[in-house]
Amino acid sequence: MTSKDGYQWTDASGLVRGVPSIGVIEPSSNINDHYQHYDVIVVGGGYCGLTAARDLALSGLSVCLLEGRDRIGGRSWSTNIGGYPFEMGGTWVSWGQPHVWREISHYDMRDQLECSYDFSQGVNHFSLGSDGGRRTMSHDEADRLITGAALKFVNVDGEYGKTIMPQPHHEFFNPAVKKYDKLSVADRIEQIKDDLTPDEMTALQAFVLLSSCAKPEESSFYEFLHWWALCNHDYAYCIEYLIKYKFRGGHSSFAIKFFEEALSTNRLSYAFNSPVAEISDHHSHVQVSTRSGQKYKASRIVSTIPLNVLNDISFDPPLAFGKQDAARVGHVNMCAKVHAECRNPELRSWGGVRYPDNKLMYAIADGTTPAGNTHIVAFGGNHNPLKPEQDIEQTKRAVTGLVPAQIERLVFHNWVDDEFAKGAWFFPAPGLVTERLEDLRRRQGNILLANSDWAVGWRSFIDGAIEEGARAAKGILDDLRKNSVQPKSSRL
Amino acid sequence: MTSKDGYQWTDASGLVRGVPSIGVIEPSSNINDHYQHYDVIVVGGGYCGLTAARDLALSGLSVCLLEGRDRIGGRSWSTNIGGYPFEMGGTWVSWGQPHVWREISHYDMRDQLECSYDFSQGVNHFSLGSDGGRRTMSHDEADRLITGAALKFVNVDGEYGKTIMPQPHHEFFNPAVKKYDKLSVADRIEQIKDDLTPDEMTALQAFVLLSSCAKPEESSFYEFLHWWALCNHDYAYCIEYLIKYKFRGGHSSFAIKFFEEALSTNRLSYAFNSPVAEISDHHSHVQVSTRSGQKYKASRIVSTIPLNVLNDISFDPPLAFGKQDAARVGHVNMCAKVHAECRNPELRSWGGVRYPDNKLMYAIADGTTPAGNTHIVAFGGNHNPLKPEQDIEQTKRAVTGLVPAQIERLVFHNWVDDEFAKGAWFFPAPGLVTERLEDLRRRQGNILLANSDWAVGWRSFIDGAIEEGARAAKGILDDLRKNSVQPKSSRL
Repeated sequence: MTSKDGYQWTDASGLVRGVPSIGVIEPSSNINDHYQHYDVIVVGGGYCGLTAARDLALSGLSVCLLEGRDRIGGRSWSTNIGGYPFEMGGTWVSWGQPHVWREISHYDMRDQLECSYDFSQGVNHFSLGSDGGRRTMSHDEADRLITGAALKFVNVDGEYGKTIMPQPHHEFFNPAVKKYDKLSVADRIEQIKDDLTPDEMTALQAFVLLSSCAKPEESSFYEFLHWWALCNHDYAYCIEYLIKYKFRGGHSSFAIKFFEEALSTNRLSYAFNSPVAEISDHHSHVQVSTRSGQKYKASRIVSTIPLNVLNDISFDPPLAFGKQDAARVGHVNMCAKVHAECRNPELRSWGGVRYPDNKLMYAIADGTTPAGNTHIVAFGGNHNPLKPEQDIEQTKRAVTGLVPAQIERLVFHNWVDDEFAKGAWFFPAPGLVTERLEDLRRRQGNILLANSDWAVGWRSFIDGAIEEGARAAKGILDDLRKNSVQPKSSRL
Repeated sequence: MTSKDGYQWTDASGLVRGVPSIGVIEPSSNINDHYQHYDVIVVGGGYCGLTAARDLALSGLSVCLLEGRDRIGGRSWSTNIGGYPFEMGGTWVSWGQPHVWREISHYDMRDQLECSYDFSQGVNHFSLGSDGGRRTMSHDEADRLITGAALKFVNVDGEYGKTIMPQPHHEFFNPAVKKYDKLSVADRIEQIKDDLTPDEMTALQAFVLLSSCAKPEESSFYEFLHWWALCNHDYAYCIEYLIKYKFRGGHSSFAIKFFEEALSTNRLSYAFNSPVAEISDHHSHVQVSTRSGQKYKASRIVSTIPLNVLNDISFDPPLAFGKQDAARVGHVNMCAKVHAECRNPELRSWGGVRYPDNKLMYAIADGTTPAGNTHIVAFGGNHNPLKPEQDIEQTKRAVTGLVPAQIERLVFHNWVDDEFAKGAWFFPAPGLVTERLEDLRRRQGNILLANSDWAVGWRSFIDGAIEEGARAAKGILDDLRKNSVQPKSSRL
């Protein structure tokens, strides 16, 4: 099946909108009875919504999943282009991510991971580029360079952040950490800049801003400290957990397991291509209206609408002020992620950064395609915005600005202009998390708002999406059980 | 409630069998209809059985949980002595343990962890004792000593074990690792002994054998490499994941959540004090007979009987040879874990080891009791066996052999003589895991055998118990769904 999402370019085909993915669901709806009153409506079919829908359906509730797109996965989905999975959004997973790992174990996919890196072949070096030019070094040299700079960056407590956030899944355990949410990445760099070499400055910025894909002055230093704590306060674990292991079959091969398990209960109804326009809570029941005017009724709703599009939905009664305000502020991650299939097999072991004078700042060789070409994945941020489909030649130059390569294919998803995301993974400006996290997490009547954007563990990650989906499902089950509401259906 | 399990000694009371615990279940049975045919019988109420029972009941199946003891938790349970939780078995948990962490998140207990260590008070040093005497050093010195020795011990590949087991949850990813299961800890020490100082030799043995609580020559080097990989190939993470964070309210405060959630479905029947004698698979159904002659029928069974007592149950048809043989061989962990409440508040920051000339080899100050005394927890192994209840004076000397202390109270559970465990957490002799793991994991007809003893991730840990319980439940649900068996009951 081919999704309407994403873009592909080759010399032969030119720019084509839409790419094939096993995450596209056909038929796009299985709803026969439009007057059914469901136990729960889940809005959004990313990992958060899939987890909630699955957990609820497995627990005996009737669930209706509504999704604006033609596919599952939300901000994480993979193509099947000539059998090769390009990851259009979230990619890497790890056993350091407990919710993801529980699911990988659940679906017996432990042996389905492969390592993005292969430092055994061809051009085995790291490129460091800046306004001052581009030079190469060994991967070990690059690791030492970035480690040294990162340790200076995070060392707010003389213990590289270990005392300020000792329990990463209980982030405010030491409340003193909150003060770092007043600082931006730019503010923190200003504090340590005299202690950084020019190379360290370049590499550090490219590495740190890979977390936010935003300008340094709009990226919260606090949030980076949280990522750092989640990665064991260790640069090596930033690589290990954030950018190393991916699914051999792509993310859609994982997400589809959640969907299929939910379907196997015979309690999951769903409608894709069904963007939600309005959610209203009538106390006795809730109602969801789609843009096309279709209405769905249920006892509870799980909304997994992301922060940056939350105010695009009409809520009745309106969302509490804290949520509305957080959504108005939004998050700042405007990542451009570009895959380039290059006729340069020798690049398989390459990696590099270039900041700020290039529209892609961080890239690694991520695999070898069936044609024997090197697959390079590259990330750009809001300091130097790129909308890849708007100017293919510019996009190619953004790749070759990192490393000389013969580009055969480009594959990407413009998340910034995606109407259901308006940005990539969550990354906040200073202040948002400490001011609004609790507001965002609070239930509103019969509506539970769940999204990785306000997870407490791996916030912004697939792990956080699963954490949140599971939290919403548990909240509803505890609630209905307390109120002795009977499920509408009960087949195994 | 007071369990029959465990022992307590004070000068005033002398040795008393049984200690109070919130893990004791009253009433001990809720079964009214002894002729009911259940969907599933779960044998064993440790974390593995609790997880299986809960997942199955939540998914709409009728479940009967049979447990030989008067309490939940199996090899992990905590007392409530004067409001203080002494951990009788498994203790520490971490976000590095994905299955545990998923459950801590599920029950919203992220803020219920406390750190065993407090290096800010009183006697803030580490004792290193051996036949040659006892001396003290700072905790930092001890960390450097053990780290240095541990790195020599695990460095089989020039990368401290990272290349030989890069994916700890997929342990045979590099099949070359299997050869280390031919070596014992003693064999490995023999290989590196010329490179170890006497202090390193003492500290290394006490540290490594804390994983097995067995003699060096009967402890698999491979299994230690697996622990090491699970701990990020890093001594600091051995401490962080294995012996740092525990539940403020004790493990029984966590385990009870599983039990209560399963009960809340109204689909969980249970009988405690009901040791199982026989499990028979009649193809159309399975039957479990207890020692007292009570019979229970179901469609499927999850047996969570641990390895060392597996052959004490009569299976009809008999267990496959590989399972029987693995159970005959058994595991080697004969840990004696002793809690000493000491009238020495100044010991709060103490820790130390002594090997081999003491019946307890490794200890840390683990907390301060309500009376203001220091709680020390100490571990002994099979190189110098201790059965704490048999000679209280000897047990006290084993504590004071580690550190001079005025002992007010002793609390312990003799796992070696526990008829339902016959040992502590799983630790294999060389050969067992590579030869028998797959045999142990294999389903046998309508009987699914699940236990942390043959988990693939955190084998031997609570995390592995949850991993295995979830695997069994998923196996049954997939199976019954495929065969369209209807659950017997279906209330939420």
